[in-house]
Amino acid sequence: MSQNDRPAVTLLGLGAMGRPMARALLGAGHPTTVWNRTPSRADELVAAGAIRADTVADAVTASPLVLACLLNYEVTYELLEPVTEHLAGRTLVNLSTGTPQEARDMAAWAAGRGIDYVDAGMMATPPMIGTEASLFLYSGSDTGFERYRPTLELFGVARHLGADAGRASLYDLALLSSMYAMFAGFLHGAALVSTAGISAADFAEAAGTFVRATSVSLPAAAELIDSGDYTTDVQSVDFNKAALDRIVQVSMDHGIGVDVVAPIKALLDRQVAEGHGAESFDRIVEGIKHPGP
Amino acid sequence: MSQNDRPAVTLLGLGAMGRPMARALLGAGHPTTVWNRTPSRADELVAAGAIRADTVADAVTASPLVLACLLNYEVTYELLEPVTEHLAGRTLVNLSTGTPQEARDMAAWAAGRGIDYVDAGMMATPPMIGTEASLFLYSGSDTGFERYRPTLELFGVARHLGADAGRASLYDLALLSSMYAMFAGFLHGAALVSTAGISAADFAEAAGTFVRATSVSLPAAAELIDSGDYTTDVQSVDFNKAALDRIVQVSMDHGIGVDVVAPIKALLDRQVAEGHGAESFDRIVEGIKHPGP
Repeated sequence: MSQNDRPAVTLLGLGAMGRPMARALLGAGHPTTVWNRTPSRADELVAAGAIRADTVADAVTASPLVLACLLNYEVTYELLEPVTEHLAGRTLVNLSTGTPQEARDMAAWAAGRGIDYVDAGMMATPPMIGTEASLFLYSGSDTGFERYRPTLELFGVARHLGADAGRASLYDLALLSSMYAMFAGFLHGAALVSTAGISAADFAEAAGTFVRATSVSLPAAAELIDSGDYTTDVQSVDFNKAALDRIVQVSMDHGIGVDVVAPIKALLDRQVAEGHGAESFDRIVEGIKHPGP
Repeated sequence: MSQNDRPAVTLLGLGAMGRPMARALLGAGHPTTVWNRTPSRADELVAAGAIRADTVADAVTASPLVLACLLNYEVTYELLEPVTEHLAGRTLVNLSTGTPQEARDMAAWAAGRGIDYVDAGMMATPPMIGTEASLFLYSGSDTGFERYRPTLELFGVARHLGADAGRASLYDLALLSSMYAMFAGFLHGAALVSTAGISAADFAEAAGTFVRATSVSLPAAAELIDSGDYTTDVQSVDFNKAALDRIVQVSMDHGIGVDVVAPIKALLDRQVAEGHGAESFDRIVEGIKHPGP
């Protein structure tokens, strides 16, 4: 299996994420077998010491740990279904992006074929791979995860979220929601200041600083959410509703869309209507958890 | 005016923000006159060396620089209209929260009465006052701002955004939009992971780290926005639309509301419909700048 103390690893898929992952494996001294539909994608890695597999079957049989870093679940099934007898007894870590249900379905598919299955979510951009800023989420087989933890930690911080294979995907989508909303808020702000001729570059600097500074209060918000007690002395629904009313009104006055901000105002309006104006802003999470009719 | 080299300062309003601001002034050796509707609010500050004014007129005449840190513009007019002859020739910095139009109207009101007017937006929480994490935005009179810049810098980073008095408020509301959207995104994510029994505290830690890590790419987004050229090799509208489709679908599958995420998907859908699927995600700012019919 291995010519040194590092387990052999096979990596299927040499896209934007797969390539830096292969480099991280090679850098740490893992015998690394790579396969890509377009074989030339592997040239640079082969020059750096990787073994090129000509077929998926060859790739899979080369290592006890198989990482699939492919476009989606459909492509992953398409490639792996013909080689399941070779995959049996090995650990398959699926890094493709999908839904919790797709992950659970593939875990069941793998279990039926004797494959040790770990589903993964990659919270990183290619340059982040191998740094502490990179977070890889895993769920499914904990024995597989624990056996290969040192290898998986080469890509970034590695967290196992539980035996339910769907959890990594769920958590991944939740983190992406936070990121997309943050970007959308920045874009709304950039649109708003543009009406006064202020550049997005100017605003990006200030917004980044402000978002980072205010994000430190997320754990305090979480404490209220987990307790279910939204009593507060500061940052009430009423106080923040006044700010959102102002943001929505000024945005409309300046002729820009309120796509991003009006729904936050509506969530606050609902808390006021339900009698929770004096409680914390964070109580709008209840309106998300329990959508109205 | 002053018993030392620090100008005398008057502070009207000793609320949650006014009190730490008064402490910062006293700490730096400014002769500091304070007034509050409920006089006992000043007791602690008087013990620390502040001068208590019995009337607004006394307060205003005590210093060349008057800071009004009151609930809103209405209260500010109510208190200052009777003392405008005393305010003439002095610099008034209005720290109350309002809209750009309210700021412009008050600047015109002040100009008509010979008052040097600076409008301000406070991007800070009370404990942040006096730290580098605190950002105070100013607009309006630049001579007033420059004259008192060292004093205003006691409260945090001080930025003057231009002679149009409405700019501080506009920028303030834009930054708040970024913050509220970031919090709303976190709350959506917290609601989503709660369906798998994952605590908000667990998620807050990861979301904070992820939001801070991804916020470093805001300046790159700003560059595209300012150039108007959204050509990209990564992070296309199409790529991110697939992620948003997944987030919206999985959220609905898990029975939670899509208030926060559906509008972002809709902004992406509009870019696709208008033929910009291959361009950058950041192009949705154009949909905010130019809302649909």
